[in-house]
Amino acid sequence: VRKVVAVGVGLTDFGRLEDDDLIDILSSASLKAIDDACIDPKMIDAVYVANMGAGILNHRTAIASALVDNIGLLPAAADTVENGPASGASAVKNGVLAVASGYYNCVLVVGGEKMRNVTGWRATDFVATLTHPYAEYVYGVTLPGMAGMFARLYMKKYGYTEKDLARVAIKNHNNGIKNPYAHVQMQITMEGIIDSPDSVVNNGPVATPLRLYDCCPVTDGAAAVILCSEELAKKLGKPMVVVAGFGQATDTHTLAERDDPTDLKAVRMACQQAYDMAGITAKDVDVAELHDAFTILEIAEAEASGLFEPGEYKKALKNGEVEITGSLPVNPSGGLKACGHPVGGTGVRQAVEIIKQLRGEAGAHQVKEPKIGLTVNFGGFGNNVVALVMRRES
Amino acid sequence: VRKVVAVGVGLTDFGRLEDDDLIDILSSASLKAIDDACIDPKMIDAVYVANMGAGILNHRTAIASALVDNIGLLPAAADTVENGPASGASAVKNGVLAVASGYYNCVLVVGGEKMRNVTGWRATDFVATLTHPYAEYVYGVTLPGMAGMFARLYMKKYGYTEKDLARVAIKNHNNGIKNPYAHVQMQITMEGIIDSPDSVVNNGPVATPLRLYDCCPVTDGAAAVILCSEELAKKLGKPMVVVAGFGQATDTHTLAERDDPTDLKAVRMACQQAYDMAGITAKDVDVAELHDAFTILEIAEAEASGLFEPGEYKKALKNGEVEITGSLPVNPSGGLKACGHPVGGTGVRQAVEIIKQLRGEAGAHQVKEPKIGLTVNFGGFGNNVVALVMRRES
Repeated sequence: VRKVVAVGVGLTDFGRLEDDDLIDILSSASLKAIDDACIDPKMIDAVYVANMGAGILNHRTAIASALVDNIGLLPAAADTVENGPASGASAVKNGVLAVASGYYNCVLVVGGEKMRNVTGWRATDFVATLTHPYAEYVYGVTLPGMAGMFARLYMKKYGYTEKDLARVAIKNHNNGIKNPYAHVQMQITMEGIIDSPDSVVNNGPVATPLRLYDCCPVTDGAAAVILCSEELAKKLGKPMVVVAGFGQATDTHTLAERDDPTDLKAVRMACQQAYDMAGITAKDVDVAELHDAFTILEIAEAEASGLFEPGEYKKALKNGEVEITGSLPVNPSGGLKACGHPVGGTGVRQAVEIIKQLRGEAGAHQVKEPKIGLTVNFGGFGNNVVALVMRRES
Repeated sequence: VRKVVAVGVGLTDFGRLEDDDLIDILSSASLKAIDDACIDPKMIDAVYVANMGAGILNHRTAIASALVDNIGLLPAAADTVENGPASGASAVKNGVLAVASGYYNCVLVVGGEKMRNVTGWRATDFVATLTHPYAEYVYGVTLPGMAGMFARLYMKKYGYTEKDLARVAIKNHNNGIKNPYAHVQMQITMEGIIDSPDSVVNNGPVATPLRLYDCCPVTDGAAAVILCSEELAKKLGKPMVVVAGFGQATDTHTLAERDDPTDLKAVRMACQQAYDMAGITAKDVDVAELHDAFTILEIAEAEASGLFEPGEYKKALKNGEVEITGSLPVNPSGGLKACGHPVGGTGVRQAVEIIKQLRGEAGAHQVKEPKIGLTVNFGGFGNNVVALVMRRES
């Protein structure tokens, strides 16, 4: 099969982007990626847009068509890919397939969400549209609620405490301060998290045991990647960051139907597929971006992906191993925790972070000379997970 | 590149499917296609769902994840592809890329829409979400309105009359009577169309010059196709219907920005790409499914695709050439006109029709021994068009 190389990356700021609409932010990230790849936009023959909420949040459809016209890419092929909060990595995967097939040479993948224009409960309700309509949604299930229940089970099974959860948040907010694109640029402390009064405003429970700082913010933002054939990449002379492996696995739609709800089977399977395709094992990963929509998920994914043995991540959080300066940095970007989670954009943002890390272009949050990076993009409540392995080859 | 074969097809009834939700109808079409392909469902390693309106119409997202669980395809990869009314063919195209890439062997593509649960103007408003939000939508533009303006220009330029439009509707409704899956199973006459009182209920103008019977109905329905590698197809022993070519082209988002609004440039380009890939010319096409969401579009697409010279389709409508019994049957299924237009499903339904025709399994609307078939799936108002060429090889 044909090798696929990531030759350009682009990000908007993540945060409240009040002056821009969805097409504006997708355009901005795309143009930055085109610029970074040093390609003539006319070379792009297909575009994949990752987005989950244009219909519900923005009352729009067919945004891929709007995008290609807006940034002068006509007559390139253009489609939107949706896979809930894993839309971003799904779009990257489909971009990889497009180039690997031999039919397309140069593909733009851009993911983003404009979700701060809805207020109050409506962002949470929007995300809950991915749950089962009769078995979950009608009973008022939300993603934070699911994550809270999951956290209780996982903490009990593997001996995690609220302080362990807080360590994820502290680490990722520390990393986010070093990432100018992150939404929340603020240091938080164990005292601030654990000892604060018991209200949401003061970081009390959102869904026990998860507090405000265990949950990612609602964020506007977009991220873009240019993928191309090895032949074209060599001509461009960009660092050779190859998409060496991908994996995607689905699990039961409802959390309640799983034999063991603490077993993130789709994470396990997607990562294993990606490792196998890349010809590596989890031990070969130098840096990882995990989908910490809730702090408990960074812990559970770090273990389900095989990066750490079950129950062992708490040690890594304490001993500094997963810090930017550690031996296996996790979420050096600040993760969803600090960057925020524009749902359709997150998987592409994770890929952008890993590509920058492998190029040595991550700036203040650069980790030490990584060769292989992993992203885990978590759709549904783990019912559709996409993993990507990227490798620096020259 | 790797050859991709269509080995299974499935359709739900098209119409008012009141007892079923979106996942039910997607499941039903999928299971029929799996059954038709005579494969073990466990052989399916990736699923593409084509859908445009789950968010707006059904307040749901991540439907691909729901589908794979519902029909026992876990842990297959699953994504939704959206490209407005051309979502169906876009999903087929991405299924082809997935198999052609060598990473997947057997892919289910299923498209559908559940859109009769919204009432009155809301279905028309939903479709209008594909228009430009500031240049079109805010001014109350609708797809019928655009088609009406387009029809006036096209009729004037090429000398078409309301009777020519009516001939498209009469032909397609005649064909639809022969297709048990079609939504509207009713013969209509020139007198009934042209001489009826001037109101929508009595087939008066929807958007002058287009009357009720110039417009496709609002329809629930789903269609599915199984695509696989040549190697697997040979083992299955199914007729070898190959996706020999595809094309996709985008044009200006707004109709008003085109140099010549009567020139369906994206149709021209998508078809030419598909012909080139298949190594054929328009003259080699034996049967075509065109996107007659409005009667004028069958005419304009028949000419933009190169099947007929500009202005010449009126003759073909009169002399029987494009009837099921003619030399180049167009929309033997009844088209969108009679089948209806569950927007995300239409492109897959068109593919299903061509596959059945090439297999000789179209029943009462079978055309005579076609070898090569074309589908044109028209997204936006011609701003994102996908064409597929399929060939019977043995």
